[in-house]
Amino acid sequence: MTEQAERVLIIGTGLLGTSLGLALSQAGRKVQLDDIAADAVSAAIARGAGTGLATNYAPDLVVVAVPPAVTAAVMAAALSAYPNATVTDVASVKTGPLAELRRLSADTNRVVGGHPMAGREVSGPAGATADLFEGRVWVVTPLPESEPVRVAQVCEIVRACGGSLIELTPETHDRAVALTSHAPQMLSSLLAGLLDDVAPEDVAVSGQGLRDLTRIAGSDPQLWTDILGANASEVAAVLAQLGERLTQAVSTLNELATPSGLSAAARNDLETLLVKGNSGKAKIPGKHGVGTNAFATVVVSIEDRPGELGRLFAAIGDAGVSVEDVRIDHAMGRPTGLVEIAVSPPAAVALSAHLSESGWRLR
Amino acid sequence: MTEQAERVLIIGTGLLGTSLGLALSQAGRKVQLDDIAADAVSAAIARGAGTGLATNYAPDLVVVAVPPAVTAAVMAAALSAYPNATVTDVASVKTGPLAELRRLSADTNRVVGGHPMAGREVSGPAGATADLFEGRVWVVTPLPESEPVRVAQVCEIVRACGGSLIELTPETHDRAVALTSHAPQMLSSLLAGLLDDVAPEDVAVSGQGLRDLTRIAGSDPQLWTDILGANASEVAAVLAQLGERLTQAVSTLNELATPSGLSAAARNDLETLLVKGNSGKAKIPGKHGVGTNAFATVVVSIEDRPGELGRLFAAIGDAGVSVEDVRIDHAMGRPTGLVEIAVSPPAAVALSAHLSESGWRLR
Repeated sequence: MTEQAERVLIIGTGLLGTSLGLALSQAGRKVQLDDIAADAVSAAIARGAGTGLATNYAPDLVVVAVPPAVTAAVMAAALSAYPNATVTDVASVKTGPLAELRRLSADTNRVVGGHPMAGREVSGPAGATADLFEGRVWVVTPLPESEPVRVAQVCEIVRACGGSLIELTPETHDRAVALTSHAPQMLSSLLAGLLDDVAPEDVAVSGQGLRDLTRIAGSDPQLWTDILGANASEVAAVLAQLGERLTQAVSTLNELATPSGLSAAARNDLETLLVKGNSGKAKIPGKHGVGTNAFATVVVSIEDRPGELGRLFAAIGDAGVSVEDVRIDHAMGRPTGLVEIAVSPPAAVALSAHLSESGWRLR
Repeated sequence: MTEQAERVLIIGTGLLGTSLGLALSQAGRKVQLDDIAADAVSAAIARGAGTGLATNYAPDLVVVAVPPAVTAAVMAAALSAYPNATVTDVASVKTGPLAELRRLSADTNRVVGGHPMAGREVSGPAGATADLFEGRVWVVTPLPESEPVRVAQVCEIVRACGGSLIELTPETHDRAVALTSHAPQMLSSLLAGLLDDVAPEDVAVSGQGLRDLTRIAGSDPQLWTDILGANASEVAAVLAQLGERLTQAVSTLNELATPSGLSAAARNDLETLLVKGNSGKAKIPGKHGVGTNAFATVVVSIEDRPGELGRLFAAIGDAGVSVEDVRIDHAMGRPTGLVEIAVSPPAAVALSAHLSESGWRLR
């Protein structure tokens, strides 16, 4: 058995399964496809994701890309049907399905869990692309009993698809996604939910901060009910901890609201919470693992004429600098907006000069 | 007395005061400037924001642009020194300072509060620009006793500076900014604060959602201690309400975490919270007051080569379409990223065709 799986079986030809089939077929692997829905398999084959499942196929690796609720059962069936194959999955929660799998099968030494963090915004084989995983985090979660060669095979597949490999235990994975993805989703939805109950004039003054905090509140409720439900205890633990700090903050604010409240102690408590936020934010890995503070920002004030943003982009393109990030801070109901362009500090000097000379208004 | 103030006195030549002086001078108004720091006045005069305060100046309007803590005292002094002038301010919290002013002066019939929502990201006269207020919400908060002509004068000044006028009572203003600005700031800081206490592997899987929710957690702690402290009771009320809903969510999640927990009722409770978030988010006014759902999104997958974003922008510029918004969804540690370009649905067709023909990879 080699560390590179040549014959792959993908069970479940939705967005992830079909994209994986496309990526691995393009990488020269032999891919066969299976799904309980025959038309989903046909669609995936038509896209070029692989061929139909042959009766005597003996895959090196089986990727189970079915909904989380049936992942363990399908993995158990695959372990039994393909007694030499490594079996992995793509479910967004790991501990529960892997524990269930251990109850269903004695062969979990051939199992290595996986979670490619990609493609949630659309679904179905129609949205599949070979580059879906490129640059995206793909967490691999070996079990204690996983054979090293199985782990190597799954890691190799991640690299072959262009994924950014992170190896975690199933427990660390679930705790980490609860903290960084699931609890933030719940929080965004709860904050946005407050807006549902107020008068229009109370949201008329909304700024960019609120828009940022509520963007993911627009997510699909059914999908997120599944995701949050599957990782419920970890998400509850994060939110309970946040709730405690929220209660502290409310109590500090109420102390500040009393006439005698402008005490140094309460002010200090509040500032400490804000400083802690600064410091936590700085821990989030950025592009290239570099904090965004390493960049300088050029701010351009633009008018809201048709094509204005396009013209600005053309001017930025002309400047020939490497742009790291762009943010558009929308003005409200008035013909203007601010565009923040993050570049390296030396590039900021060149870009500012170029844009000024081209007649753009810099802030 | 006319509804257009020709002679304006600006007290406080920081970022807001100096920017206002620049905007009003350019609009042809006679602007005099005052500040307890003589060098701040000199800097503002050098920028072209107005002239120094003459002894016998009789302004139509005094704008008090000093820190919130001293706003009421400076407004009271202005009411006394200029017995015919309308007096307004720029403090980000209204109820407290205006109540204090009522205790200090009997002339609040000449007072109309104001809050231009602009310019918090930088400070000092050096960052001042005449277009600081263009397209930005500027809330005007008349008192019950404010004379109508005074209200008209302040509203006219807002329009002269290009601000987007919203008239609210001081109480509604403070409740609205607590909900849409101050509580979100606290929440972002608290969420980011959780990250400060965890192991690096727990934040390694961070995605765009977490980045969005924690962006404003990078704000200046001292400034926000002042802002939150000045509106403490309103912010505490919003956060307490959010805390109640958070507690409900934790209890629903804990129910889902028990083996018997995948009950229809608990799932339904969770989904209801998420649907409520969808609906609250939809209430936030967007650019032109149009929801972002009115736009189509073209998604381009780019490689992380120097200048790649600049080249994409040049290609977008070439397409000649009106771009409404751009979001860059960063890939982590790998040479690629997704750029989402929001345009009108017909422009999406044209832009997609142009970018495909130019060799860009569309998602």
